[in-house]
Amino acid sequence: MVESLARDLVCIDCGAVSPLGYRLECDKCRGLLELRYDLDRLRAKGPALFAGPGLWRYAAVLPVGDAAHRVTLGEGGTPLLECPRLARQLGVRRLLLKYDGSNPTGTVKDRTSATAVGAALQFGYTATSVVSSGNAGSSIAAYSARAGLRSLIFAYERASAPKLLHMSATASDLIIYKGVYDDLITLWDRLVEERLFFDCGASRNPYKHEGKKTLAYEIAEQSGWAPPDVVVAPVAVGETFIATARGFRELRDAGLIARLPRMVAAQATRANAIARAFRDGTAITPIKIGYTVAEGLAAGSPGRKGDWVLRLLREHDGLAADAEDQEILDAQRLVARAEGIWAGPTGVATVAVLKRLLEGRQLDPAQTICAIISETGLKTEAALPSREGTAFDLDSLRRLVVERLSGRGRPG
Amino acid sequence: MVESLARDLVCIDCGAVSPLGYRLECDKCRGLLELRYDLDRLRAKGPALFAGPGLWRYAAVLPVGDAAHRVTLGEGGTPLLECPRLARQLGVRRLLLKYDGSNPTGTVKDRTSATAVGAALQFGYTATSVVSSGNAGSSIAAYSARAGLRSLIFAYERASAPKLLHMSATASDLIIYKGVYDDLITLWDRLVEERLFFDCGASRNPYKHEGKKTLAYEIAEQSGWAPPDVVVAPVAVGETFIATARGFRELRDAGLIARLPRMVAAQATRANAIARAFRDGTAITPIKIGYTVAEGLAAGSPGRKGDWVLRLLREHDGLAADAEDQEILDAQRLVARAEGIWAGPTGVATVAVLKRLLEGRQLDPAQTICAIISETGLKTEAALPSREGTAFDLDSLRRLVVERLSGRGRPG
Repeated sequence: MVESLARDLVCIDCGAVSPLGYRLECDKCRGLLELRYDLDRLRAKGPALFAGPGLWRYAAVLPVGDAAHRVTLGEGGTPLLECPRLARQLGVRRLLLKYDGSNPTGTVKDRTSATAVGAALQFGYTATSVVSSGNAGSSIAAYSARAGLRSLIFAYERASAPKLLHMSATASDLIIYKGVYDDLITLWDRLVEERLFFDCGASRNPYKHEGKKTLAYEIAEQSGWAPPDVVVAPVAVGETFIATARGFRELRDAGLIARLPRMVAAQATRANAIARAFRDGTAITPIKIGYTVAEGLAAGSPGRKGDWVLRLLREHDGLAADAEDQEILDAQRLVARAEGIWAGPTGVATVAVLKRLLEGRQLDPAQTICAIISETGLKTEAALPSREGTAFDLDSLRRLVVERLSGRGRPG
Repeated sequence: MVESLARDLVCIDCGAVSPLGYRLECDKCRGLLELRYDLDRLRAKGPALFAGPGLWRYAAVLPVGDAAHRVTLGEGGTPLLECPRLARQLGVRRLLLKYDGSNPTGTVKDRTSATAVGAALQFGYTATSVVSSGNAGSSIAAYSARAGLRSLIFAYERASAPKLLHMSATASDLIIYKGVYDDLITLWDRLVEERLFFDCGASRNPYKHEGKKTLAYEIAEQSGWAPPDVVVAPVAVGETFIATARGFRELRDAGLIARLPRMVAAQATRANAIARAFRDGTAITPIKIGYTVAEGLAAGSPGRKGDWVLRLLREHDGLAADAEDQEILDAQRLVARAEGIWAGPTGVATVAVLKRLLEGRQLDPAQTICAIISETGLKTEAALPSREGTAFDLDSLRRLVVERLSGRGRPG
């Protein structure tokens, strides 16, 4: 069994150190906490510390000590795909897509669900809860079921049909809430204090957060420990972005990679509080948002995690931008046709933003760029093509095929 | 680069040997062909021949020689999940689910799409085609796009919404056909002879077929080369079943595993031509079928592959059975709630059949049983829970949570 190198918790604001335990913020200043590891040990042992497939390959740098608590549905180990055709269309030398739609419930959320539900077991909880636009809800419900825990899933009323079906099949308790994520999350975050259930939200819990750090470890290992120059990550509240940035920082601090990739925060224009603050050089002003096709990015009030994203962007030469819903839908189709990768709007917002940044010459097209695709397209609800079918005989079938192909199917 | 050990093609009926090439049946007797490999080399080198992640880890025993033709979206390498809770509910000592819903397009079909489209490139084709209930169509379209090939996808008019959306996004040409698979496949199979496109159907092409063999290689390797006693595979035309059985046979012939698992063929009762023939001890009588919730199993006339399945079952002490649509839907919910695994009806038919066989004492509950889950639940179209949302204040939120959990969320 691989031991966890987790050592303590550090406040990102005042630097105060707390012992490991189920803590959501700093006792001294109420700042957010991050887990700290024995990186000397990581430096000494190197990749030999990593063993087995998927997310728990990186158990050494995750905060779940007992292997019996390492709940899994086979998350992580997702492909890092070279995309030469899409690269040409976007005008960039080399493009990699980290396709996290291959996770068990079809999204990057499974990484955090594994460590959240693992930590719930570790701290003796028997129920979990989350407020979700759909993806986190499906994922936490699935991992809770897998671990035999009760799950109270609060789901967005406009969540897509596949997400709703998924949640109703796997959650022990599914509750549909009125309005958007922002409308419920503040109340729910207050209720978390009462410890009726384990916090599986994105606002504070450092144990939940941690699973997504494996994105950085995988991208680095799949690149032979020479990660891409730029990594584009989606940002709603900031969980994926921060965790990925932290992962790269640990890898650099432990000497496993030579330098940090430049991180780009990708938002939907309809929920662009962080991109806007970055552009304007101001603090974040929460915005009142409505619907965006990138359902999973629909947060207008990203709270303290949003501030953390902004700080990481400013301290490390990052970049933030957003894309309109139509650009996101165009990117969805582009990625599907150019590379056969079917991702949801939430998942391809990174590509829409990347396209904008390349067109605006805000990124160097000679660099190697990696975009995180956070979601499969199978959770998309959209207008269907007509289901009216044609009945064929051999002649009409041949005619159709010949007409469509115009002789192009034959070997040359 | 790992070399392919593919050596020639052998007729499964008359045993005639043909050189490697794009051939769909035996020149002498029109029997189906299977690929044969240099198993002495596999025996000599052992698992050292396998390298890298996913399906192409097993490139040595796949028929695509040139690495440039090994098209990939990250298929294969899917989890083999221990399912103790479901095992208890079904009354079996040890149950493993091979969850192939984690493939890039959410189904086992990606394994055959990788080798089909790889072979299309190998033989110089620029267009592919397939007749599909939805899963194969999505998958062949995606892999064709990935390889830059044109794809003519014939899709079932009752394919689920997520499958239709997927196909319309990735196919170059999507054609909806009237009726079920059986109504079109005979005509389309005749058209294949004219070589206007590369055959990506399930009826004959041994190159396409071959990708699913990796199911056996993965199950064996993930079990430390001591595979489960029983493997339950879904059967429509028989591609998954035959390929998996062939994989285990190769592994045994090369000395990598000591004995063959017992293979169980799982069908939907509404499309049970093979299970019926097996039970009655007769040849297969094609049946006229209608709709089954297990869309991917909707074939009433499985053709020569069906005969092959029956032969394998009879020669190797196999077992075949079927489950009613309601049993399949019950299994879908059971697997979701007991283990957090959300699979489609096509995907869980194996579990429904397994439940029947255990209840009927046709399988030994003291054995280790593995069921292949061929499809994610995200492609399911079904009645939705009400989307009517509740607006909360802190008090009403707390009341709801306390009521639901009745104090059960606290650590004990």
